Order: sequence, then C-alpha cells, then structure tokens
Amino acid sequence: MKGKIQPKTLPGFMELLPNEQILFNKMKETIQKSYEKYGFLPLNTPIIEDAKVLLAKAGGETEKQIYRFEKGENDLALRFDLTVPLAKYVTEYYDKLSFPFKRYQIGKVYRGEKPQRGRYREFYQCDVDIIGDGKLSIINDAELPAIIYNTFKNLGFDDFTICINNRKILNGLFYSLKLENESAEILRIIDKIDKIGKDEVENELLKTIEKEKVDTIIKFISIDGTNNDKVKALEDLNIDNETFQEGLSEIKQVVKFIKIFGVPEEYFKIDLTIARGLDYYTGTVYETFLNKYKNLGSICSGGRYDNLVEYYTDRKMPGVGISIGLSRLFFQLVDSNIISADKESISDVLVMSMTDDYDMCAEIARKLRDEGLNVQTNIEDQKLGKKFKYADNLNVKYVIIIGEDEIKNNVVTLKNMTSGNQITVKLEEAVKEIKKDK
Amino acid sequence: MKGKIQPKTLPGFMELLPNEQILFNKMKETIQKSYEKYGFLPLNTPIIEDAKVLLAKAGGETEKQIYRFEKGENDLALRFDLTVPLAKYVTEYYDKLSFPFKRYQIGKVYRGEKPQRGRYREFYQCDVDIIGDGKLSIINDAELPAIIYNTFKNLGFDDFTICINNRKILNGLFYSLKLENESAEILRIIDKIDKIGKDEVENELLKTIEKEKVDTIIKFISIDGTNNDKVKALEDLNIDNETFQEGLSEIKQVVKFIKIFGVPEEYFKIDLTIARGLDYYTGTVYETFLNKYKNLGSICSGGRYDNLVEYYTDRKMPGVGISIGLSRLFFQLVDSNIISADKESISDVLVMSMTDDYDMCAEIARKLRDEGLNVQTNIEDQKLGKKFKYADNLNVKYVIIIGEDEIKNNVVTLKNMTSGNQITVKLEEAVKEIKKDK
Repeated sequence: MKGKIQPKTLPGFMELLPNEQILFNKMKETIQKSYEKYGFLPLNTPIIEDAKVLLAKAGGETEKQIYRFEKGENDLALRFDLTVPLAKYVTEYYDKLSFPFKRYQIGKVYRGEKPQRGRYREFYQCDVDIIGDGKLSIINDAELPAIIYNTFKNLGFDDFTICINNRKILNGLFYSLKLENESAEILRIIDKIDKIGKDEVENELLKTIEKEKVDTIIKFISIDGTNNDKVKALEDLNIDNETFQEGLSEIKQVVKFIKIFGVPEEYFKIDLTIARGLDYYTGTVYETFLNKYKNLGSICSGGRYDNLVEYYTDRKMPGVGISIGLSRLFFQLVDSNIISADKESISDVLVMSMTDDYDMCAEIARKLRDEGLNVQTNIEDQKLGKKFKYADNLNVKYVIIIGEDEIKNNVVTLKNMTSGNQITVKLEEAVKEIKKDK
Repeated sequence: MKGKIQPKTLPGFMELLPNEQILFNKMKETIQKSYEKYGFLPLNTPIIEDAKVLLAKAGGETEKQIYRFEKGENDLALRFDLTVPLAKYVTEYYDKLSFPFKRYQIGKVYRGEKPQRGRYREFYQCDVDIIGDGKLSIINDAELPAIIYNTFKNLGFDDFTICINNRKILNGLFYSLKLENESAEILRIIDKIDKIGKDEVENELLKTIEKEKVDTIIKFISIDGTNNDKVKALEDLNIDNETFQEGLSEIKQVVKFIKIFGVPEEYFKIDLTIARGLDYYTGTVYETFLNKYKNLGSICSGGRYDNLVEYYTDRKMPGVGISIGLSRLFFQLVDSNIISADKESISDVLVMSMTDDYDMCAEIARKLRDEGLNVQTNIEDQKLGKKFKYADNLNVKYVIIIGEDEIKNNVVTLKNMTSGNQITVKLEEAVKEIKKDK
C-alpha cells in the first residue's frame, strides 16, 4: 500500500451497504408515493445556493453549522434545510405558480454538527408544505396529519400517535397571564416535559415566575382526557384573550377535519405540552411518536408558519408543513432492531453458469427479464461454491443454474435459497415458481 | 421591497418548475427501474468527500472545476463524478462486498464549469458499473448495451444506435505502426470525426505523421458495412499484434452476446472511430446516439477500465460501466421539443368546493385516495374562476366539484378538463370514469 491514499468516508456522513441502501430507498419511495397521493408537486432545488439568500433569516447555531465557501467571486453555502429554499422558490417563481402551492421535496441537507452516533452532517429531509398567497385555510392543517398517518402506515408502522397543539393557545395563555415576554423561555421549558417530567418543569418555571401563574400553567398543561375533554377543558378556562380563542377555534377545526380526512381517533391527540423549539411556528404544531419507542423522539414534526418569506418579499405567504428526518430515523430504526435490512435483495433471481458455455445463461437472463423479473447474472469464471456464496450475499431468493445437462436437455435447475429445494424444469415452470413469491 | 434579499437561484444550477420536475422524475425513475431489472444494487455515497480521496487521480481541468473548501480542519470537496466515489467504496468496503460487484448510483455531481446553455454546475449522473476482483468476464461488456437498449426503450425512444469499439484494437494498430507514443493525440483527433469529418481528421494527422501510416489509419477508420463485415475486415488486416488481436477477440464476444442479451441488430454497431476522450478506458467503449438528433452528442457513454482503484489499493479490480448525464439530456430533449412537460400532472383529480361547507369535500378526497388515486384538494376561500384556473395550471385531467346541490343530493360533479364535459353522478361512477383514464 505504499504511496496509496486511504479510501475513507468522512465521519458524520451516512454511507450504507447495498442491502441497507435497498431498504432505505424503499422507505424513501414509500414516503414519496404517500406525498404524491395527496397531490403534492415534486421540487428539487439545488444543494448549493447563494449564501446571502440561504442565510437571510438564519443566525446563531445555523450560521456556525453551515457549509459556506467561496468559488471564484461567489459566496456559496449548502442548504441546511428544505424550508428556506422553498421560501426562495415561491418568491422567485411567484408568477409561475398557483396558490395554494403544495410541494414535497426529498433531499439531502447539510449541517456541520459535532458527529455523534445517529447524527449526520449530510442527511435526508422529506418535507411537504402548503403555501398560501395572502391566506391559507386552516383545513390544510388537518390534511397534513392524514399524510403523516398514511405515510407511517405505508411504512409498516401501526402503533404511533400524532400530537397536535396550537401555539396561539399557548401564546394567548401567556398574554392573559401577562407573561408574553417570558413566553419563549416558558415554551422552551415546557417542551422538555417528556425528558424531565412535570415536577421538574414546575421547579424550573418557579425560578422566575410567581407561584400563582405557574399553578395556572401547570394546570393548563395537565389538561387530560379525550380530545373532546381537552377542548371542553380549554373552553372552561374562559380565557378572555383573542389569540387564545383563535387558537382554540383552530384546533377544534383541525380535530374535526383530521377525522374526516380518515385518521382514526386512536392515532392522534391534542397535546398541550408540545411547542416545537423553532421560533417560526405561529399556529398548529405537530409531533409524531412511535408509542413503544418514545425514546426515539418525534419522527415527524412540523407546523404552521406565517412569516417564512418575509426576508425576500413584503407579500404575506402563510404556510404549513411537516418533515421526516429520514437518515436519522433510518439509523434509529435499524439500531433499535425495529427494522432490518438482512433479507433485502434487488433481484428476484440470479442466473449462473456451471460451465464455460455462457450462451444459454445469457439467453435465460434475457427471457426472465422479458417476464418482468429483476435478474442478476454471474457469468464469471468462478468456482461453484464461490458462486453460491455470492447468491447468499445477494439475499436472492432463487438461483437458476445452467450446467452441461441443462444445456443438453434445454431445462434449468431452480434452487430456492430459503428452503434449499432444487428442481430441474422447463424455463416456463421456473418462471411460474419465481413469480409465486413476488 | 426595502431591506429584502433578492431570492435568486445561482446561474448554472438547474431548478425546474413543478410540471418539468414531474417529467424529470419520471425519467429518473425509469432509468432506476431499468438498472434494477439487471440486478444492479443501489448505492448512495456522500456528496462531500475528503478532498485528498476525491482528487487522488484527478488533475488539470478537474482540479480547476472542483468545489473544494475547508470546514474546521477538514479539506473537503464535492464529488465531480460517481466513478471516483465507487472506486473509494469498493476498496473501503472490500471485505463486505461480493464480486463481481454490480451497483448503480443516480445522484448529483458538481463541476464549476463556465455556465453555458444546457451545461450545469450541478447535474445528475445515472451510472451502472460492474467491478471484478482480479478479473471480470468480457460478457459483462455485452450486458451493458442491453441495459442501454432497455433503458432508452423504456424512456420512449425508438430510433437510437449504440456504438461500440475497443481501445485495444486502436492501441494495437498504433503499436503495429510504431505510433504508440502518439496514440493519445491520434485518438483525440479521431474522436472529432463526427464534428470535423474524415478529410479534416486526415489533415490533422498528416501534420505530425507520415503519409503511409495516416493512410492505414484512415483505411482503418473507414472500415464499413455490417458488424460481421467489420469484424471480417479487421481480421483481414492481419495485424500481428497481441493487443490488437485481443481487442478483436473481445469485440467479437461482445457483439455475439449483445444479441443473446436481446438487443436487435439495428440498435447497435461497431464504430471504429469511437475512442472516448477519457484516458482511463482500456477496452470496450460505448457511445449512444439518437439517430435523428446526432447533434445532441452521445446520450449514454462508458467503457471498460482496468486501473480505477490503483490510487487506493494494489489490488487489481477491473470494471466496466456506463453513464447517462440526465440533467443535460433532459435540457436538450426539452429544448429540441423531443419531449414536453406541458401536460404533466401529479394528481389524477382535484377536489374543490363551491361552498364554505368543506366536510363533504374532505370526505370525498379521503374516499378517492382510498381508491388508490392521487388527489389534490382546493379547500380555500377562492372564487370559482380562480379555482378552475388553478386546476388548469395543475394540468389535472379531472375536477370534482362539490356545491350545495351536490351536498344535498350526495352526488358529485365530475368535469373532464380535456373535453370540458361535465356529469353529476354518484361518487362510485366518478371513480370508474377517472380510473378509465389511468
């Protein structure tokens, strides 16, 4: 290895083995198909943007984490999410788009975070957003949970909960308590309730807020029961604040339409403790949890935002969206043994020769492909044992073997790699057998 | 617009409108499915790599064009093709892979070229490669044209030619003429034959090479006729050079097996003038042309290379691969009116309300989605004219309209946006009608 460069992938960059990649791609395609089922249009914005455009709103952590560099005279940056490029897109192409503009984007984003287990510097986000021109019906906020529901159902999950809240309820409450200036800090503390518990939240709040008000906040976030119970309890608080009442009215609409859009009651709930850290949310917020694996954190989050495009235009363009952080989710699901790539295969069948007469091998491969099957060939000059090991590593369910007898008698030997059974039959028979398992 | 940042995509970066993106994605998925049909495994390597790793082999133009930058202590670069990352991958994960290793990768690559019409700085490459461990059967070189054939057939093209040559034939010829040191320069000149013509090639060669040898070269590249004629003519040259005879024997095998793999004779031909500029090809080379649009240049190219991993390992790992430059191809096809995105739509049907009672609208959307249809909703408080304009812009074939009468009578009004016909029927009827067109 003298004078050689060590081939090494950078730390913090996900690079999968082929069987893992097959599973990852399946999940990505399932998400895409679900998004398309709801009529969302695909976008694919560049990964490199003008740094000025990308950092119009950003600051703090984002600025530090961003990949920013110069090329010639250009000050460039890699996108750190798909939301800012969307804000750019809708203002740049405003005249060519129709509103409400519904788009999905699935793509890689970049953040130079400290590499940690399961935290990547390059990772996939899968976003859907609806952007209105001037205004945007609250019913859109109810259609998104239906997308979340269908997406995770299609991904094979059955035990998850979509949690919904509305920032206006929280903000209105704070106004009514004259705590509006402390609201960001209070939300930050409330947001930690799943990690630190209610008592600790109370203790933290008491550090800066008088007892009576903390009691109201704790009473508020303790509201429990069915969605209807919660709405009732919120109404019974009789809070005389416009923002609060607006939030309450919105969440009632959302809960009503979620059901009509087909999400069963057991898959969603109002959760008044959810605030979402990001300060750009202004109304509805979402988080989604796998009930048996709450420790994974929210697997799909989002919300309503009113001011996303304000750095580019004076136009009012409210939006609502959700995002799945697929790279991190994939890592977590594999790491927790919730999913496994061990049996993944791209091919339905591997065709391999036992002689150095490869004509029939190539012909059989062609015929199987004409039948719509995914077919790999191994036409190398390798020992049979090595070829079977190859088939094993591919996880392929069927192998067709072409030896001297098969060529002479115009038949094929079909081996079922799961059962180990082997039959020698006409090709048509073999095709039937393989297709049974598709 | 005071204090606003102008939202602007960088020059040289493709960013499509939604209908164009739908068409682009369809092409990308067609290519992916074709690659999978031949049993190629998916890879998705990072876009950012260690600059040392990526530039192990590079030099000249590549070094100048590459996006290279520092982040913390890391010297980073964006991949400029998918071949170098593959070389990295097979050496880095050698112990976990089975050979011949067949992988496809479809992803964005980056080259800071001068922006020109149809030349992008960020563009998609769609690659398939087969990497052997120590050796690799020549029959693989025949399976790749079958992939090209099937891919372009599936993309809807019918009049194209896959041109095949073998660098060993050319190199052997040069050896026999004692022109081996001039071979790179001669190949560069021959490669221009489509652009400048045979006479001009002859003139350029005569500048540095004696007439007798140029005559042989011109006689060689003038070899014409069917593939069999050409093979015969090459044999008749009786060139006593091992490399030449090896190349001849290889191309005979390739031509034989291309047919067995199912490529009709009229879709491929031996073209002795094709050399491919890139100096890493060592055997078979491919170019593909749309016969009616030869001016577009080769739309799928590739070849056999023996030394790709030599910068990372002493192991011998020969490979053969092809690549489609999808972004450029897409631009060219749209620009030449060969394809059009004007009618592309993601949704089968748009559901919209004519009243402010949205319950039935949401319910109908859910039921249509349960039927497997892609459904968009427009539940905004917009005028009817605006909603129909919205439907027009979506290119959606069907619109379902829910007004007061529809709600009262539990029916839907289905408008065929192509014919303009409108019927008011039970939902089940509407579903049947929409599915007819799928």
